[in-house]
Amino acid sequence: MPEITRTVSQLIGEFAKMPGIGKKSAERLAYYVLRLGRAEALALADAIRDVKEHVRYCRNCYNLAEQEECEICLDPRRERDILCVVEQPRDLMALEQSGAYRGLYHVLLGRIAPLEGIGPDQLTIEGLVSRVRGGSIRELVMATNPTVEGDGTALYISNLLSGLPLRVTRLARGITSGSMLEFANKEILSDALSGRQTF
Amino acid sequence: MPEITRTVSQLIGEFAKMPGIGKKSAERLAYYVLRLGRAEALALADAIRDVKEHVRYCRNCYNLAEQEECEICLDPRRERDILCVVEQPRDLMALEQSGAYRGLYHVLLGRIAPLEGIGPDQLTIEGLVSRVRGGSIRELVMATNPTVEGDGTALYISNLLSGLPLRVTRLARGITSGSMLEFANKEILSDALSGRQTF
Repeated sequence: MPEITRTVSQLIGEFAKMPGIGKKSAERLAYYVLRLGRAEALALADAIRDVKEHVRYCRNCYNLAEQEECEICLDPRRERDILCVVEQPRDLMALEQSGAYRGLYHVLLGRIAPLEGIGPDQLTIEGLVSRVRGGSIRELVMATNPTVEGDGTALYISNLLSGLPLRVTRLARGITSGSMLEFANKEILSDALSGRQTF
Repeated sequence: MPEITRTVSQLIGEFAKMPGIGKKSAERLAYYVLRLGRAEALALADAIRDVKEHVRYCRNCYNLAEQEECEICLDPRRERDILCVVEQPRDLMALEQSGAYRGLYHVLLGRIAPLEGIGPDQLTIEGLVSRVRGGSIRELVMATNPTVEGDGTALYISNLLSGLPLRVTRLARGITSGSMLEFANKEILSDALSGRQTF
């Protein structure tokens, strides 16, 4: 396409690299940027730049942070003897939004996925082990995704720490609140039955 | 959400303003930027900045341009006595991609839409009239969208120019190649019949 300008083509190309954004969506986003006022467009460009310049991983838990430690690790009101182990910062965010957890976290930055060549060494498991060996942790809540790989990662970690004086738990599984029993599959119902609780 | 970092929230907010991007997609895009290498993220930020700094409207036809005139107006191989009138640069792009048109364009930058308070004065109609009055234009092909507003805009312009020695045409309407007759609506079939052509 020689008729579109070079910088517009460039922008469409950059947008089209983003997940879930096809060629048509990328074009629509580029036209959106063209319509934006100068200040608004620069705000978008700067927001991208700022994230890259200011955001790093917390040195304790590998959550996203703008200082050495993330806001959760720095928060004196959090319980410091319980760690929730998640795959990604977005999982941590989801748990935080529930408001149901007041301990600290450990973000693995992935899960063990042999088919993709991701082994334990590429995750932050070493950091987790040394935090636990530090001795002040009483419980580890495994909150990896309920998938084959997530479960496998949780199992690997709990085996690794089996000698230590530490309770390792995992998130409850069962039917989801607001769902319909008739649409739950065999696995969900089997989880719900085996984990049934007394009223 | 006090737990996400300020700059990440900022970026999610900027992405969420984009058309077709909801809160969840904006978060996914922000995590994508976080995963990008520094150079790749800056390429995205710079592409946005560059579009804002280098792209303007062609002084003749209001197509997107990086110089005073757009590449189509500058191209000596284009026929210069025929103008195709479109609503937006993206419509021009669609026509260019068909490869079926070799004349020049005029981009209205919108259509007359009384309900949104958009009148003829907010479009580039004045520029079109002076191009036509210049005298070298033999034909105007109206290629506004086949909608009530697009048709209304085309009608307004053709009335405005009715005194001038100029052929005003519009894109053919009918059934679309590759479609099935049984799914064409009454209006499409009526267009196809009234515009039928001899073999």
